[in-house]
Amino acid sequence: MSDLHRPPTVNPDRIRQRLQAFARIGYQPDGSVTRLAFTRADLQARELLIHNLSSLGLDVRIDPFGNVFGEWPGVDPTLAPVLTGSHLDTVPSGGRFDGSLGVVAALEAVSVLDDAGIELPRSVQIVSFSCEESSRFGVGTLGSALIAGGMSPTEALNLEDSDGVSIAEALTAAGFDPDTLDSTRRQTGDFRAFVELHIEQGRVLEEAEQSVGIVASIAAPTRFRVEVSGRPDHSGATPMHLRNDALTGAAEMILLIERAARESDSSVGTVGTLRVIPNAMNVVPGRVVFDVDLRGGDIEDKQQVVDRVDAGIDEIATRRGLAVTRQTLTHQDPVAMSPEIVEMLVQHSTARGTGHRRMLSGAGHDAMQMARICPAGMVLVPSSQGISHAREEWTDPELAVPGIQALVDTVIALAMS
Amino acid sequence: MSDLHRPPTVNPDRIRQRLQAFARIGYQPDGSVTRLAFTRADLQARELLIHNLSSLGLDVRIDPFGNVFGEWPGVDPTLAPVLTGSHLDTVPSGGRFDGSLGVVAALEAVSVLDDAGIELPRSVQIVSFSCEESSRFGVGTLGSALIAGGMSPTEALNLEDSDGVSIAEALTAAGFDPDTLDSTRRQTGDFRAFVELHIEQGRVLEEAEQSVGIVASIAAPTRFRVEVSGRPDHSGATPMHLRNDALTGAAEMILLIERAARESDSSVGTVGTLRVIPNAMNVVPGRVVFDVDLRGGDIEDKQQVVDRVDAGIDEIATRRGLAVTRQTLTHQDPVAMSPEIVEMLVQHSTARGTGHRRMLSGAGHDAMQMARICPAGMVLVPSSQGISHAREEWTDPELAVPGIQALVDTVIALAMS
Repeated sequence: MSDLHRPPTVNPDRIRQRLQAFARIGYQPDGSVTRLAFTRADLQARELLIHNLSSLGLDVRIDPFGNVFGEWPGVDPTLAPVLTGSHLDTVPSGGRFDGSLGVVAALEAVSVLDDAGIELPRSVQIVSFSCEESSRFGVGTLGSALIAGGMSPTEALNLEDSDGVSIAEALTAAGFDPDTLDSTRRQTGDFRAFVELHIEQGRVLEEAEQSVGIVASIAAPTRFRVEVSGRPDHSGATPMHLRNDALTGAAEMILLIERAARESDSSVGTVGTLRVIPNAMNVVPGRVVFDVDLRGGDIEDKQQVVDRVDAGIDEIATRRGLAVTRQTLTHQDPVAMSPEIVEMLVQHSTARGTGHRRMLSGAGHDAMQMARICPAGMVLVPSSQGISHAREEWTDPELAVPGIQALVDTVIALAMS
Repeated sequence: MSDLHRPPTVNPDRIRQRLQAFARIGYQPDGSVTRLAFTRADLQARELLIHNLSSLGLDVRIDPFGNVFGEWPGVDPTLAPVLTGSHLDTVPSGGRFDGSLGVVAALEAVSVLDDAGIELPRSVQIVSFSCEESSRFGVGTLGSALIAGGMSPTEALNLEDSDGVSIAEALTAAGFDPDTLDSTRRQTGDFRAFVELHIEQGRVLEEAEQSVGIVASIAAPTRFRVEVSGRPDHSGATPMHLRNDALTGAAEMILLIERAARESDSSVGTVGTLRVIPNAMNVVPGRVVFDVDLRGGDIEDKQQVVDRVDAGIDEIATRRGLAVTRQTLTHQDPVAMSPEIVEMLVQHSTARGTGHRRMLSGAGHDAMQMARICPAGMVLVPSSQGISHAREEWTDPELAVPGIQALVDTVIALAMS
């Protein structure tokens, strides 16, 4: 522990190389990356991580939901470890930074300890959570939710993707054991802390010309699925006034959601998925299913948007003679990060001469689940033009390094405390 | 020919049995029927038709596009035959009457001739046209268009379904020969006439309490594909005012199309298909593709709707910072039916003591293609509640029989003239 008055420095080349290696898995001809949860590409990324962990000499543990852990052992095995990491799954046609950068930052933390031959009182554990993205099963941060008790195994196992494949089936197909899912659950006290690094996925840091974002709280989503049912009719032979068109009704609802979010103080609202049934050129749509994602850092402001959308959907359905059902997928409150970790991140950024910005995370992250069972903190690094979940997702390496350094410094400090 | 002062009567039981036999092919658990063009179910329906034709002793001919013909030979083989029939393909989750009833009516025409042992100067040919529905390749009445010159073989072969399968590939997979597609083409003079029976797919006959609709003209569609491109962004981290959401833009366009059609004199407008890319809960949609189907019996009224929709789409795209491209799929003018055949249908309905109604067909049909090369006529029979392209599609047998009788009487009269 002799070198800790001069804390070790991260290696930008190694970071870049590891990131590139993950980006090659699920790489698409258009330059995007697709690693949907529990698909072959997702499993391949996990294999690469396990290879990395083994090369660092870490003990690897994989729980029944596929969450991967690697432990750099501390001097005192009775002390709870410090956890750091993120996720390796992506949205369809996503980018190469979202999730992967946090896993690479966690690998970097252990690598600098290894380089410097440092021993610490507490263990440092690297984690990659399964199924952080909601793209496949409609609900995100599933791996961390199962660990921290944000969702029960029974609830999780029954979720289905758009092809009707349940999580239980997807787990079995991927070689995991859904019957032992209870054992993923960890308790308060099991971890000293969880610290995650992630790209911002917005434009706040870029506009402020800051490279380190320190998250004070995470704006958690309210998500629900809306199914609009009208009457399928022939598109040529049915006069306009006799139609109950589910798609024109859904179109009005989509614009209502946009308007309610625009007119709110701080919330955002999105319809990201929509399916038309039967989806034929010459049939007036009989049924439309779409998902609504509402988020905000202020509980009351978000609830006002939810209420306005609820009432508006009913009004539109009634006026158009449509039936409508709503199914809540997620309803979460904003989550505060640990003030202790926020302060440590601020101190370490300042000590390195790096500017920083305390901020709200508009995106949800595994850290908001982990905050249920341990102090949690998050570092955000800039996203070029705020673009994420797309092939254009980009963070310049020099803009990522200060954030990774702040994470590494904080993980080391936590492992000493 | 001795019995023709007492024309033969159709057999309702036989009609019902044949219709049920076709309905069993592609039957879905929910009660709908799915026989998309050139799929296995569509080919099975063709096999059943061929079996029916052979049982009646007809010569069967199948052209390279899969159009099936069966000929009841006339006394004078130098005279052009009378053609009657419809199609056996369906939309996804369609009904059991659309198309099939017209093929069954054509079989009935030959069956009553067979029952009565009648000989006629001209041959009567039964036809089932391939790919009448636009559901699979985005363009309908393809089989009859290739026969009558409404589309070139090259154009047709390059059409693709939503999985990227071209017609050339679909034909080859179904055992047909796309290289000889030129030989499907028939010329003016090859047929004495074409007469088709079809369900109305609207509510006009039901509201008028008439069972026989005699089509004066067919309201042909203008169809185009719209692709709206915005920017895929994270749904939580992107403030509303920084978004270029392709789906909210598309929603405005869908409502514009509805409004333009509602405010027109006689046209209808529908968006029946829509696809969101990448279609993920937490991504602001970057791209949306949808198809527009505009129809009307009046050329000018329809053109006004097309123009208004064109201008409105541009205005919405510009205002929202979206890029938009349009691809014309079909642009057809309304088609008049042969006045000679209209009069024959009127006379025969009247002679049988059946009421009738002269009307516009809002739906497009193979008859509008065949009208390019021979006198064409159409009989519509009522659709319960106007519903078609859905499992609820229904025509009471007693309401179908007068129309089938009018068709049979007219086919016989044409085969004598």
